Amino acid sequence: MSTLWEKFLTNEDRAVLARGKFGRRMGFGQQPAVLVIDAQRYMVGSVEDEKSWPSSCGEVGRESMRYIAQIVQAAQQVEVPCIFTRFEIDPSGADMGVYRRKRDLLQSDKWCLAGTLGAELSPLLAPTERDLVFVKKKPSGFHGTPLLGYLIDRGVDTVIVVGGATSNCVRATVFDCASYNYRAIVPQEAVFDRIPISHAISLFDMDRQFADVLPTAEVMDYLSACRGGRFEAGRSNK
Amino acid sequence: MSTLWEKFLTNEDRAVLARGKFGRRMGFGQQPAVLVIDAQRYMVGSVEDEKSWPSSCGEVGRESMRYIAQIVQAAQQVEVPCIFTRFEIDPSGADMGVYRRKRDLLQSDKWCLAGTLGAELSPLLAPTERDLVFVKKKPSGFHGTPLLGYLIDRGVDTVIVVGGATSNCVRATVFDCASYNYRAIVPQEAVFDRIPISHAISLFDMDRQFADVLPTAEVMDYLSACRGGRFEAGRSNK
Amino acid sequence: MSTLWEKFLTNEDRAVLARGKFGRRMGFGQQPAVLVIDAQRYMVGSVEDEKSWPSSCGEVGRESMRYIAQIVQAAQQVEVPCIFTRFEIDPSGADMGVYRRKRDLLQSDKWCLAGTLGAELSPLLAPTERDLVFVKKKPSGFHGTPLLGYLIDRGVDTVIVVGGATSNCVRATVFDCASYNYRAIVPQEAVFDRIPISHAISLFDMDRQFADVLPTAEVMDYLSACRGGRFEAGRSNK
Amino acid sequence: MSTLWEKFLTNEDRAVLARGKFGRRMGFGQQPAVLVIDAQRYMVGSVEDEKSWPSSCGEVGRESMRYIAQIVQAAQQVEVPCIFTRFEIDPSGADMGVYRRKRDLLQSDKWCLAGTLGAELSPLLAPTERDLVFVKKKPSGFHGTPLLGYLIDRGVDTVIVVGGATSNCVRATVFDCASYNYRAIVPQEAVFDRIPISHAISLFDMDRQFADVLPTAEVMDYLSACRGGRFEAGRSNK
Repeated sequence: MSTLWEKFLTNEDRAVLARGKFGRRMGFGQQPAVLVIDAQRYMVGSVEDEKSWPSSCGEVGRESMRYIAQIVQAAQQVEVPCIFTRFEIDPSGADMGVYRRKRDLLQSDKWCLAGTLGAELSPLLAPTERDLVFVKKKPSGFHGTPLLGYLIDRGVDTVIVVGGATSNCVRATVFDCASYNYRAIVPQEAVFDRIPISHAISLFDMDRQFADVLPTAEVMDYLSACRGGRFEAGRSNK
Repeated sequence: MSTLWEKFLTNEDRAVLARGKFGRRMGFGQQPAVLVIDAQRYMVGSVEDEKSWPSSCGEVGRESMRYIAQIVQAAQQVEVPCIFTRFEIDPSGADMGVYRRKRDLLQSDKWCLAGTLGAELSPLLAPTERDLVFVKKKPSGFHGTPLLGYLIDRGVDTVIVVGGATSNCVRATVFDCASYNYRAIVPQEAVFDRIPISHAISLFDMDRQFADVLPTAEVMDYLSACRGGRFEAGRSNK
Repeated sequence: MSTLWEKFLTNEDRAVLARGKFGRRMGFGQQPAVLVIDAQRYMVGSVEDEKSWPSSCGEVGRESMRYIAQIVQAAQQVEVPCIFTRFEIDPSGADMGVYRRKRDLLQSDKWCLAGTLGAELSPLLAPTERDLVFVKKKPSGFHGTPLLGYLIDRGVDTVIVVGGATSNCVRATVFDCASYNYRAIVPQEAVFDRIPISHAISLFDMDRQFADVLPTAEVMDYLSACRGGRFEAGRSNK
Repeated sequence: MSTLWEKFLTNEDRAVLARGKFGRRMGFGQQPAVLVIDAQRYMVGSVEDEKSWPSSCGEVGRESMRYIAQIVQAAQQVEVPCIFTRFEIDPSGADMGVYRRKRDLLQSDKWCLAGTLGAELSPLLAPTERDLVFVKKKPSGFHGTPLLGYLIDRGVDTVIVVGGATSNCVRATVFDCASYNYRAIVPQEAVFDRIPISHAISLFDMDRQFADVLPTAEVMDYLSACRGGRFEAGRSNK
């Protein structure tokens, strides 16, 4: 699976990685949550009017969304909490801060403005009563949100991060997960980016130090061994 | 200057960037601080016994350290506060959390263990009475540290981030700077990484959304127009 | 004005305070914001059916609300940003965490449940386009909210905290204001509590270490000397 | 035990508390930690030269310190982690922020300045290898410190808060504990304050909404039923 970034590394890079002992497995814990980052319409657009969605990740995003939906459904079935962030900006721009200097799409109703179609969760996802949905204003799902308290309240030790974009919001969230000492798991097919090289190198960077980047199949196996929201060793169907 | 990442982009990538209006200039503010991330011995090793420093960025890091020293001195001269983080881990590993599962160099005295040579600030840097130095335990300079209060107390609006590694601690810090609504400035030559492609793509990713990646010369010009810690328009020597 | 807590202090207390040099004036800065904590219907109830509002502070709260409205209007007139928090809980209780173990009013539509009358802002308050309103889930206005970034983005150095209850959400917010190095100002008549002694002693505790507790008139004078959101020395009408 | 604050309440206060259903028991969880707030020499002074310690809580503090030591030893015996904060300020005052406007004892070596006797932990306390000690710069043990990550890493769900002062650092820490959804437990005799009424009313306020204020004996019973750092129901000696 690592071929996504392998081809970008030189022999010298590999020697550096070996010397620094980077990239060991962090491993799964017992009490997981699935954290779905910005799996919204504006992130994946639609095949009919692709060009009119200014921030869409296109077909890559839509394909990834199917993996995300699969993981969410598997989690919901075994009572693993799913937490959905929605990136949403006030149409006035008053809550954007410095980001507005960097980028400004306040005229578009196919971006992530509050009240627009673009800001809605993907229709492939259906939060249940057990799940939580909240708005964030910045890349990380932890920044300026009640996320941390939700994880602590539920005794979570493992956060499975899915959504997009890999090099922006997913990566910022993974930094925070690892910094708060959660085991961070990234199912490779369930994260996506609008720039292929940013996607590949972010996966590499995260896997090196902050998260385990794994095939989605491996994450599905783990979830299938959970009952009542908790991993029970020896239960895997595999 | 953008050539560092330009060569990795396809025409399709460029179309995506144009459509999403990414990468505008954020611009400098009036009240800067220089934030020096982990400019410690273990990050740059030494030319004599290169292989014995497990986490060193090597010659690339040592060259960058000269740019960092140049920026720090320019800032100190005009009373812009310089804030130095030191990444330091207890030799017991008790403060490492999940990072210990990912990577473990607790046997090495040339890593960043408290009390070892590796944990010391680079001898090229000399914090003054105005400056601040503190230890951090996680990638971002903001995580679990008093940094935010120091910036607020000094009325800072612009954070010039230097140090390493670009794809780890610098990037996590830049995410947080931008998320707290500071203008984040990254002088390209004054940040460094042990993996060249991670360095280049992280610069690209940050410049796209979260920071202005600029030539060091441009940052030096800005600092030369500061007096008493404050930027005064029209003072630039340029 | 200090009589509210003076009567509770012994001579020995006064000697302790003098020896520890507690309670100096912090003073106003140049760039204020007004932070309105939970000025919602459930906090003040109504005179007609007083007993049916389980968390109401009663007449004390309604009187204070008039001072709050006065301060907010004065601030809005001189373009000082007003930031309103609303304490709101999901009717499912899923976002309450440990607080649900301490207290549970999930059956009441006159508490602060999302979508109920109780959760609405007081009709005496009218946020303008410049102002910000957001939901919080915990006592402090900073906890799990985007507040900090809003203050940083607007260059605020002084936070005028009003609302209720003094010993709970106001106090938690004042702790955080001072900890982030904002000058915290508490106009005495514009904060309120359902328990008189908790109100008085919280004012005393805050004034001793974390905030300046001032007569509302003094805060109105300060605001009347602001223009375009900024304090300009020498402009006071006084 | 509740007599400490009972005498300050009126019948009307009691009616308000009943109507609002305040003050239920939160209860202990399974995975405790003991959090020792600022149990340093400057907080308790010494009987010989009482007047020379400007911030001392005096005999009240010294008596409480014996309860703190008792709890810490009981916890250490059953491998419950003890986490010690030390409030410490740089003699230059550069890290004090707005607090310096409120209070300034920078000339005293019997306050909490780095390197002075006053800043040392009480000699009654002996952190073990399992324990953690760190410096904080603000009232709450969570503010600008790595505390949160330590608790998450150890799977803690219950924080037993001891130390001083009740109305300042203990209370700010308890606010944060409860806000992050930890069960907060305050053993009444093991917290102390320099002002008796601030102590009593802070205990009342915390017990009402944010923590269980309990007799130390009850906390000792709980700890005696822990093994390997974990509470095991049915093990209590009682």
